[in-house]
Amino acid sequence: MGHRLLEPTSRPSAAADRVASSRIRELLDLVDRPDVLSLAGGLPDVSLLDEDRVRAAFAAALGAAGPSGSTALQYGPTAGIEPLRSHLADRLDVDVSATVVTTGSQQALDLLARSLCAPGDVAVLEAPAYLGAVQAFRASDARLIGVPGDADGMDVEALDSLVDDGVRPAVVYVVPDHHNPTGTVMSAERRRRLLAVAARVGAVVVEDAAYRDLRWGPPTAPLIGRGERVVHVGSSSKVLAPGLRIGWLAGPADVVAGVTRLKQSVDLHTATANQLVVAHLLSDGAQPAHLERLRRTYRERSVALVAALRRRLGDRVEVRVPDGGMFVWLQALDGTDTDALLDRAVDRGVAFVPGSAFTLDDAPSTTARLSFATLGPPQLAQAVGRLAAAWSP
Amino acid sequence: MGHRLLEPTSRPSAAADRVASSRIRELLDLVDRPDVLSLAGGLPDVSLLDEDRVRAAFAAALGAAGPSGSTALQYGPTAGIEPLRSHLADRLDVDVSATVVTTGSQQALDLLARSLCAPGDVAVLEAPAYLGAVQAFRASDARLIGVPGDADGMDVEALDSLVDDGVRPAVVYVVPDHHNPTGTVMSAERRRRLLAVAARVGAVVVEDAAYRDLRWGPPTAPLIGRGERVVHVGSSSKVLAPGLRIGWLAGPADVVAGVTRLKQSVDLHTATANQLVVAHLLSDGAQPAHLERLRRTYRERSVALVAALRRRLGDRVEVRVPDGGMFVWLQALDGTDTDALLDRAVDRGVAFVPGSAFTLDDAPSTTARLSFATLGPPQLAQAVGRLAAAWSP
Repeated sequence: MGHRLLEPTSRPSAAADRVASSRIRELLDLVDRPDVLSLAGGLPDVSLLDEDRVRAAFAAALGAAGPSGSTALQYGPTAGIEPLRSHLADRLDVDVSATVVTTGSQQALDLLARSLCAPGDVAVLEAPAYLGAVQAFRASDARLIGVPGDADGMDVEALDSLVDDGVRPAVVYVVPDHHNPTGTVMSAERRRRLLAVAARVGAVVVEDAAYRDLRWGPPTAPLIGRGERVVHVGSSSKVLAPGLRIGWLAGPADVVAGVTRLKQSVDLHTATANQLVVAHLLSDGAQPAHLERLRRTYRERSVALVAALRRRLGDRVEVRVPDGGMFVWLQALDGTDTDALLDRAVDRGVAFVPGSAFTLDDAPSTTARLSFATLGPPQLAQAVGRLAAAWSP
Repeated sequence: MGHRLLEPTSRPSAAADRVASSRIRELLDLVDRPDVLSLAGGLPDVSLLDEDRVRAAFAAALGAAGPSGSTALQYGPTAGIEPLRSHLADRLDVDVSATVVTTGSQQALDLLARSLCAPGDVAVLEAPAYLGAVQAFRASDARLIGVPGDADGMDVEALDSLVDDGVRPAVVYVVPDHHNPTGTVMSAERRRRLLAVAARVGAVVVEDAAYRDLRWGPPTAPLIGRGERVVHVGSSSKVLAPGLRIGWLAGPADVVAGVTRLKQSVDLHTATANQLVVAHLLSDGAQPAHLERLRRTYRERSVALVAALRRRLGDRVEVRVPDGGMFVWLQALDGTDTDALLDRAVDRGVAFVPGSAFTLDDAPSTTARLSFATLGPPQLAQAVGRLAAAWSP
């Protein structure tokens, strides 16, 4: 069936002891070395972030009184400020009461893991998986099961077989649009099947939509609104600025109640000024053009990266061509161990994330995630040149 | 011995199910009713927050490049930005590596609870206790033990007796300066004894210093630096602006490592611009005068509140006179149940927090927390007038 099962440790442990330090975060340190061209980050390009617009929004937020006379500087409601929740409710076609503003979408994942999973409960993730989700579900002491994906997204038939075998997932976590790390978009058929299988066992489907607005391919239908137990997770980090730490979730009333109760004990509420800024920026008239510019730029860069990979690495690799997001997923067809490759690559002045970083067991692999977000086409070509040189030492 | 012991539930539960909704937060809704004078909040007075200074600091932060070329808008390091950590290290006389910036001090408590307590581990809190700490330790599935306090702070001899009885706390949580809710300052002798008892069993002492900078009494010595296993928790919420959500902790290397690892999975890092703003404001030349103004104002208000209570309620209450912080702790000497009193008080147009909200078992009590932070002396007198009217219906 191809899924990998991780048993929880038998004696109780503190949450921090269940979270390994992130290889990605350690790799991010390499970004600062001026001699390294980094394809490793999941960071947006700072130069595309529209700092002037954000600065003006902060000035407006700090000048403006919030709802019911509170200001940007005072404590605010745990579920978020009304203007941002209203915008999200409109966008996601849900009631305002179904929304919660979070301190980045990473917090949404942590709150969901702690709300939906008692220790030992099963959380299913597409393998390879976003490391932040793996960490969040591990910290909640869930039992993680990775279900493999292909070019159409998670193999829902494999999930169905698990259910046939008696597995009862509390949560199925997916990134249907431009999956991290593979860049894959889940097909419409798979989305339908996923909702049906989840409904069969009462599992909550968590739809992580962090990259959804960076899509230049034909539109896809989100999962939210199409099943009773769907939670949608979103982020301003990829389309406005990650440093603001504004994310959100929307879902069923009982999930929102549990998340909100827990958030009160986790950080009381998300920074008020930052919420006002994001509410303003997401709904102002300049955002569509800003998004268009992001998509155009990332698309150009993805094309340049894919072309360079084909030119320099040819039939040694298989490349999944993205139509959105920030990542190209690469499979070495010649058996190259990408963990070992990374060491040689950094020596040559290029960094990427080996596929092992996205597995549940850190096993060496022949895959790699390459980000095209932060480098222009000439630098991407140069980076791939270095990668090709590292490939054949 | 007077301590109350709460057993954990025997079957596993999700963290959100272990956290009750906060009565205080529900009460905060009353603040917005224009006919209610609120003594209930733990909020600073918005009008004292120095909005112009914060606005200028945001403008500077958004214009300035951060360390190593990153900006206020980009992802940042999990433990916090260097300028703020450096300031904290100087202030607390610890190494920069011993500091972590958190999303408000509430997040510090959550991260510490999840780092230091495996399910079933004992966390000792002074009873009555800060509800946010109770929630954080409950969410981590710790076994909570309340040790009563008096006018000198936590009864450390009672803690010592617990240890004699075989209890091995993983954590002892205290608010030595202007305890929430009682406003108490722990005596120097109790501080010494606390560190000795904790050292005897290897417990980590968590020193919550949220109100420390609001002290107008003679200086006290913090616990940090006086024991190997002390973690200091601080906040900008009471002295700058709670809406910024900037707190911090400092402690031993292993605790900092666990907290940082967990924080990565909890929210990646705290909002970058907000950290830059707090780093700037805490270290700029205007902060001492700002603090002086806060202390002077809160002192005047505390005097007005205590005087009004003595005038209007006389020997029906015992009042603990504060020399810092935001709260007056009141004990009804005539047996008045403060839960029942609250209903009558709200009808009369005044709100406060009954002592039951700070107990581990929500048992009705004859105590109450009154905040003097947000009302001027005439309003405080008016509020106490209403309270006195509610007292004798």
